[in-house]
Amino acid sequence: MIIQKSSNPRISSFDPTSFSFGNTFIDHMIICEYNNGKWGDLQLVPYGPIGFTPAMMGVNYGQACFEGMKAYKDKDGKVFLFRPEKNAERINKSAKRLAIPEIPKEIFMEGLKTLVDIDRDWIPHGEGMSLYIRPLLFATEEALKARVSEKYLFAIVATPAKSYYAAPVSVKISDHYSRSANGGVGFAKAAGNYAASFYPTQLAIEEGYDQIIWTDDSTHEYFEESGTMNVFVRINDTIYTPKTSEKILDGVTRDSFLQLAKRRNLEVVVGDVKVSDVIAAQRNETLKEVWGVGTAVVTSIFEALGYNDEHLLLPKLSEEESFAAMLKKDLTDIQTNQAEDPFGWRVLVEEQVYDL
Amino acid sequence: MIIQKSSNPRISSFDPTSFSFGNTFIDHMIICEYNNGKWGDLQLVPYGPIGFTPAMMGVNYGQACFEGMKAYKDKDGKVFLFRPEKNAERINKSAKRLAIPEIPKEIFMEGLKTLVDIDRDWIPHGEGMSLYIRPLLFATEEALKARVSEKYLFAIVATPAKSYYAAPVSVKISDHYSRSANGGVGFAKAAGNYAASFYPTQLAIEEGYDQIIWTDDSTHEYFEESGTMNVFVRINDTIYTPKTSEKILDGVTRDSFLQLAKRRNLEVVVGDVKVSDVIAAQRNETLKEVWGVGTAVVTSIFEALGYNDEHLLLPKLSEEESFAAMLKKDLTDIQTNQAEDPFGWRVLVEEQVYDL
Repeated sequence: MIIQKSSNPRISSFDPTSFSFGNTFIDHMIICEYNNGKWGDLQLVPYGPIGFTPAMMGVNYGQACFEGMKAYKDKDGKVFLFRPEKNAERINKSAKRLAIPEIPKEIFMEGLKTLVDIDRDWIPHGEGMSLYIRPLLFATEEALKARVSEKYLFAIVATPAKSYYAAPVSVKISDHYSRSANGGVGFAKAAGNYAASFYPTQLAIEEGYDQIIWTDDSTHEYFEESGTMNVFVRINDTIYTPKTSEKILDGVTRDSFLQLAKRRNLEVVVGDVKVSDVIAAQRNETLKEVWGVGTAVVTSIFEALGYNDEHLLLPKLSEEESFAAMLKKDLTDIQTNQAEDPFGWRVLVEEQVYDL
Repeated sequence: MIIQKSSNPRISSFDPTSFSFGNTFIDHMIICEYNNGKWGDLQLVPYGPIGFTPAMMGVNYGQACFEGMKAYKDKDGKVFLFRPEKNAERINKSAKRLAIPEIPKEIFMEGLKTLVDIDRDWIPHGEGMSLYIRPLLFATEEALKARVSEKYLFAIVATPAKSYYAAPVSVKISDHYSRSANGGVGFAKAAGNYAASFYPTQLAIEEGYDQIIWTDDSTHEYFEESGTMNVFVRINDTIYTPKTSEKILDGVTRDSFLQLAKRRNLEVVVGDVKVSDVIAAQRNETLKEVWGVGTAVVTSIFEALGYNDEHLLLPKLSEEESFAAMLKKDLTDIQTNQAEDPFGWRVLVEEQVYDL
């Protein structure tokens, strides 16, 4: 591994009590180039621009995928990653579907740990605080041919993070737009999936909603995801969530919620979630909660569903009554080293793991 | 418009009889930045890299779309564009669906004509020769938030072009993978649509095919597109092509073929093209031709269809018998100023249209 530390670090000007999420970047980044059929040297370098012409295939043909993950700092200053091997596996599932060469897990993990270790002072400590980490893979060959690229970049960049959403949100159940096709790339964290969701989301916002519950493109009768999150529904005391498929992301937070719910002996059904069943439950008052989960937001609780022209309110549960709030606390307590970790999910980031 | 000509042009080393399509770039490119809610100065600059970090939203969230078009040089050295206003309109349809700000048509056309004029010496003359031009729009803000970007780049880059495919190709009728969802972005030249097609195409190639005829994702009973082209079928002497929709690109070559077919009083049906009808026609020997059309390839003639596990051969028609070959010649004769242009499709690129 090649380490080139910044000669002009910005950390001294970083105020962990006041920063902008998403565009405050830590001092370094990880890069590794793929060329001539193989991955080159893993490098830690100062965060900054790399030269690409507008013929770069990544922006022409969308051959690009990413991961989202976080590092947490506990009260003693120890730093932990959360189930990082899941992200290493998933970026390669995405890569395979997009015909991008897989990044070896060792390169992914070494780059990740080195970056987080060297820039550990950028990780804020406290309620909802973390370092949001973005590994990504994208095509860098400069060529105007709609074919698989011969050059790629693996990179990891990161930004300090606070809680994403504060208030409960209203979500519209999609009756026209969709985010994934049968035989498509919905299960992958493919760059193009996100761009495709923006315009329908803008329309939903104009209608007074915050985001969209995506439904299947053929019938709009089944829940798929919500915004950029997996979706959970609670009817009476049973939790329902769609099973993963080629259309639905295999979310790390989703999987963790399922395991935490089982540990609490909650009844969980993983399978088809029918729009009509959810609406019927709202009408007969057995629908207790609907929420989204994802790395960035952890949990987003919904206060209303838009269904055709109706605005259907959901119950306001207390922190004690809410399964969503309870499971979120179970999860974040493990992530932030405030609870035992019987699952072995936390991964300590050792100090000075790199050779200088 | 700001013109900054290359101080180190490469044109003297360009050999129009021997070059590599797609990665031989002309000396200049057009760029125009969008920021603070508006498009800035249109600029012609030397082709080359621009600095982006891996947090650039275009490669993270796929907010990117493009056009493909060509300039042709006639025997007298005059240079023509072909229906460029169609591309200016379509890039904005793509942009709208991807929540990218539209590029004003005047900026698009001025940039296009200036670039082609200044680099006209790069345009090869001769059978199948042209300059392939790539206008594109992509998100350039550096931020790790899955939301609409606030900064964009409009760019035009170009590469000299020869004929794309030489030989007839075999195509597999997709029975699992698909390129577009109902309520999705299939009609747009969205970057992500192309990446999503690569892996299924690789699998088809492993089965001995060259590309895929995409079918609807719900039933796989209807033709949509073929590879990156619109698809035409001829049964007896009637031409069929799918109607455009939110799943099917409104191709300029497709539209031109339809108008040329009508001029020749050929019977044309624009509507659903059922896989089962095409297969039945192949079996009863009324299926005469199946071909794809697009700017890059103009026409790609198919010699065989893969359907489930069958390899169904198509007739080998002579140039005189083939509607595809006839319409291709009609089109390229107009494009290259070898025939009258009753449609008003050719647009002359004047010399010295720019102010220095």
